[in-house]
Amino acid sequence: MKIAILPGDGIGPEIVTQAVKVLNALGEQFELETAPVGGAGYEASGHPLPDATLQLAKDADAVLFGAVGDWKYDTLDRPLRPEQAILGLRKNLGLFGNLRPAILYPELANASTLKPEIVSGLDILIVRELTGDIYFGQPRGVRECPDGPFKGQREGFDTMRYAEGEIRRIAHVAFQAAQKRDKRLTSVDKANVLETFQFWKDIVTDVHKEYPDVALDHMYVDNAAMQLVRAPKKFDVIVTGNMFGDILSDAAAMLTGSIGMLPSASLDANNKGLYEPSHGSAPDIAGKGIANPLATILSAAMMLRFSLNKEEQANRIENAVKKVLAQGLRTADIYEAGTTKVGTEEMGNAVVKAL
Amino acid sequence: MKIAILPGDGIGPEIVTQAVKVLNALGEQFELETAPVGGAGYEASGHPLPDATLQLAKDADAVLFGAVGDWKYDTLDRPLRPEQAILGLRKNLGLFGNLRPAILYPELANASTLKPEIVSGLDILIVRELTGDIYFGQPRGVRECPDGPFKGQREGFDTMRYAEGEIRRIAHVAFQAAQKRDKRLTSVDKANVLETFQFWKDIVTDVHKEYPDVALDHMYVDNAAMQLVRAPKKFDVIVTGNMFGDILSDAAAMLTGSIGMLPSASLDANNKGLYEPSHGSAPDIAGKGIANPLATILSAAMMLRFSLNKEEQANRIENAVKKVLAQGLRTADIYEAGTTKVGTEEMGNAVVKAL
Ligand SMILES: CC(C)[C@H](C(=O)O)[C@@H](O)C(=O)O
Ligand SMILES: CC(C)[C@H](C(=O)O)[C@@H](O)C(=O)O
Repeated sequence: MKIAILPGDGIGPEIVTQAVKVLNALGEQFELETAPVGGAGYEASGHPLPDATLQLAKDADAVLFGAVGDWKYDTLDRPLRPEQAILGLRKNLGLFGNLRPAILYPELANASTLKPEIVSGLDILIVRELTGDIYFGQPRGVRECPDGPFKGQREGFDTMRYAEGEIRRIAHVAFQAAQKRDKRLTSVDKANVLETFQFWKDIVTDVHKEYPDVALDHMYVDNAAMQLVRAPKKFDVIVTGNMFGDILSDAAAMLTGSIGMLPSASLDANNKGLYEPSHGSAPDIAGKGIANPLATILSAAMMLRFSLNKEEQANRIENAVKKVLAQGLRTADIYEAGTTKVGTEEMGNAVVKAL
Repeated sequence: MKIAILPGDGIGPEIVTQAVKVLNALGEQFELETAPVGGAGYEASGHPLPDATLQLAKDADAVLFGAVGDWKYDTLDRPLRPEQAILGLRKNLGLFGNLRPAILYPELANASTLKPEIVSGLDILIVRELTGDIYFGQPRGVRECPDGPFKGQREGFDTMRYAEGEIRRIAHVAFQAAQKRDKRLTSVDKANVLETFQFWKDIVTDVHKEYPDVALDHMYVDNAAMQLVRAPKKFDVIVTGNMFGDILSDAAAMLTGSIGMLPSASLDANNKGLYEPSHGSAPDIAGKGIANPLATILSAAMMLRFSLNKEEQANRIENAVKKVLAQGLRTADIYEAGTTKVGTEEMGNAVVKAL
């Protein structure tokens, strides 16, 4: 089995190194091949997603991705900026199904900015559509405003869109995920304002007929943002579009106070996937050896489960992570008095030992 | 001075009654005229925004609005649903500038789901553009998908757009609001993905030249959703588009745990405005006499300040509200042990007494 390793920028290389170490310690035969992406891709060959990197990702059975982005690339033209690499990978590989768990480990309950009773035991899954919506819709650009009170001025514009089949396939992913959990799905839309999301709501309601064992409800995105703050534990699985999912999944991750712990998976129609931590490239702490590698290690576990069909090895990694937390080991981002502060490499070594 | 009173649905009539009582107790001469809106408008004349109601709102110097919506209208066609009234009022009256303060009163610090140290003293202002963006952009609808892998299927679509002048005028509102506060403005966009918001960012940056005393920064909407949960007090004024503002302002309001306390203003180019509580119509508690009227009373205070040029009377109302809170009076939504639970009318009477 071939795994493309794309470390990227900032803390990306450090945390991916630890995840690779954990993968290698499983005693399985993986073919790992590394390629530059993001700012590193731009440095190497003038583009954030070099052709060879994209080809490697296409040829591999799964992609383990670190993080991209650094302030030094902020002045580049948009098509050359690091984050275009991740958008390009999603689109070119057809990775439409983004699974983002927001889990609060009991040992880390204090890390949240929310009161313990509101978040302790939090375990929700956000299913975000990842290749449609206003992220990729055409036409878009800056043009002369064609009508209305601002006619003749310049205007920026984008197109939000979802086709029926696009909504159906992400709805299936979400209903099936709910079936494996508490069997409750909340579809988040803005059907009271947007045609796209009235259509979304209608299609999700239709797909629901195939999953009578799952309880479906619909919630407006503004209300969902409120309920995540008010009573996040009431959710089980949330499914939503690319744009709303971007916002809500980050808010949900932050509820845990330990975004350094949260993995994510982005899957295509055949469960090939790209796996990356939910946090970013944190250039401010890059190279200091203090970044938390656990989100990336847990992303590798998701990769074993979803793309490589190795549930048992996935569980081994997840249990090892729980064990090091129980041992009191903490990187700086989740450190509190009474625990043991460790660096990136020590944390990776501890997980290997706990396997 | 003529004020249009639009109570609406659910708890709308009860809470507006209290705000009107407070206005009448100021000893000023206001001409108040009431009209049905939302579900009540639909019942009265078959449309959520009856012509006579819209005409009254146009003729008035300001509009005091309760809330609209009830489950019983959920099955109506979208153009007939209660919330279309508020969209219609915004668009027809040109109310592009939405000011939504999120303030945590010291007495209510416990009401928040966030830890006291994260939110105590919270005082942020969200400036949301209210008549543009994907809310009103044409074309929109359901059509045959014109291209790509889903070609030929049905698809829902909408258009996001912002013209230069539209961005400039809301930027001016936001910079001027920041000048009266801590002189810090965060413009929230998604310039890394959307053409509309790269354009937004460029124009806001340009308007900044006229306000050198205000510190401007730019933040992606997903990050803003995270920072609101992580460290909301770091914000002073936030300015953003209609869609992102809808989501972020509700999240920010919920941080306080006391959305029943939060007023809002929606202003046109001449400071004529519509004033409404940030909460909804709460049909589940309508008619029970337990709804919190303070957000509506504080909305009346904003009306006096922004549209009627009566700063002193606005302050009188705001101080009266602080006084009743200090006296320990609480409606059910903000009640906690050790305080005195009162109903909607008692709360209104207490504010009148405290004036
Ligand atoms: C970097 C950016 C384009 C990306 C997105 O908006 O999808 C990121 O925020 C994410 O959620 O992975
Ligand atoms: C009712 C709805 C159309 C409205 C909006 O989305 O603007 C509401 O959520 C608000 O924020 O006033």
